[in-house]
Amino acid sequence: MMTNKVILYSFFRSSASWRVRIALAFKEIKYEYRAVNLFQDGGQQNSEEYKRVNPMGQVPALIIDGHTLTQSVSIIEYLEERNPDPPLLPKDKYGRAQVRALSEIINSGIQPYQNLSVLDKVGKGKDEWAKSFIEKGYHGLETFLKQTSGKYSYGNTVTMADLFLVPQMFAAKRYKVNMEQFPTISQVYDSLIVLPAFKAADAVNQPDMPPNFQ
Amino acid sequence: MMTNKVILYSFFRSSASWRVRIALAFKEIKYEYRAVNLFQDGGQQNSEEYKRVNPMGQVPALIIDGHTLTQSVSIIEYLEERNPDPPLLPKDKYGRAQVRALSEIINSGIQPYQNLSVLDKVGKGKDEWAKSFIEKGYHGLETFLKQTSGKYSYGNTVTMADLFLVPQMFAAKRYKVNMEQFPTISQVYDSLIVLPAFKAADAVNQPDMPPNFQ
Repeated sequence: MMTNKVILYSFFRSSASWRVRIALAFKEIKYEYRAVNLFQDGGQQNSEEYKRVNPMGQVPALIIDGHTLTQSVSIIEYLEERNPDPPLLPKDKYGRAQVRALSEIINSGIQPYQNLSVLDKVGKGKDEWAKSFIEKGYHGLETFLKQTSGKYSYGNTVTMADLFLVPQMFAAKRYKVNMEQFPTISQVYDSLIVLPAFKAADAVNQPDMPPNFQ
Repeated sequence: MMTNKVILYSFFRSSASWRVRIALAFKEIKYEYRAVNLFQDGGQQNSEEYKRVNPMGQVPALIIDGHTLTQSVSIIEYLEERNPDPPLLPKDKYGRAQVRALSEIINSGIQPYQNLSVLDKVGKGKDEWAKSFIEKGYHGLETFLKQTSGKYSYGNTVTMADLFLVPQMFAAKRYKVNMEQFPTISQVYDSLIVLPAFKAADAVNQPDMPPNFQ
């Protein structure tokens, strides 16, 4: 049955869920929030109920226009095509390539290494492992942003790249990365977190954030 | 100085380089091949000379239209916008989302875990590590492809998703993944490797493939 309701399956501190929450808020698309707790009941993403939504057993999943979408990059590109205003990609081809490259530095170059399933496999020393991959990626990102950033990652307009940067900073803080090494990333982050869409999407403002979470 | 020449910095068995080579061949864009050996001289990607091309010290880098592009996803999207015919993305929004999601399962969900720098860090047991992440990702990919594939990953037309699948299979073979578990991936792969663009882009057909490579 086709429905107009938009439903997001999300976990408050999943960075992939977080990116999509920013996109939805930025484009002012209303949605129903359905929490998937990655720790409770051995991981609710692995439940039979959730696997009927997303057989991959991952968050986020977005139900929209009668379809179920997965993978944050794919969902954000879909939302950009569906609701082009306000845009998350520049008008020119080269600008779009730069924004997508900045997004990928985080998406495929940093975030996979701090994934829960990976850290479980690393076991002892996992905090140091996560920190080292974030720092390595941040050195590249800092260099890139020095060329592209204004107030935000790409000039003075919010783009897709910013949706990746903010949740990544949550992990950088968690693993105690010394941000004095990365003044450009820090400045862009500070400019972003005060914006309404970024506040609305923040982990601490989600219904499934536990009361004792620090 | 603006030049019309397209230059690809590539390593024959880098899967990110390989994806871009398929896109260039598929769209019949001629280019000059510049080999960057990831092992020689402590890794030529780290040389001062190469860092002037790509400060991130990664392959591929594509010089095109007077710009230097990095990150395979970003480069492929640029080429798709620049040379839309023949297309690598379906015409409909949902189809594009599916193709991009399939690409991401490999791009951010599998390939990062078999990266050289990661395997170095894993050290002992790295072959088992790589194999386990490929298998885990392949279970998801197989499920997804059962819904979307025809002759190729998405129906009977070559798409961006296929550009990610073929180089990934090179790694799957290298780490001795038992492909009997994944009949759909295997069938799609077999359909793809006979196509001219995929042959031209194959690791074994690159100028920097060493004569003794197996």
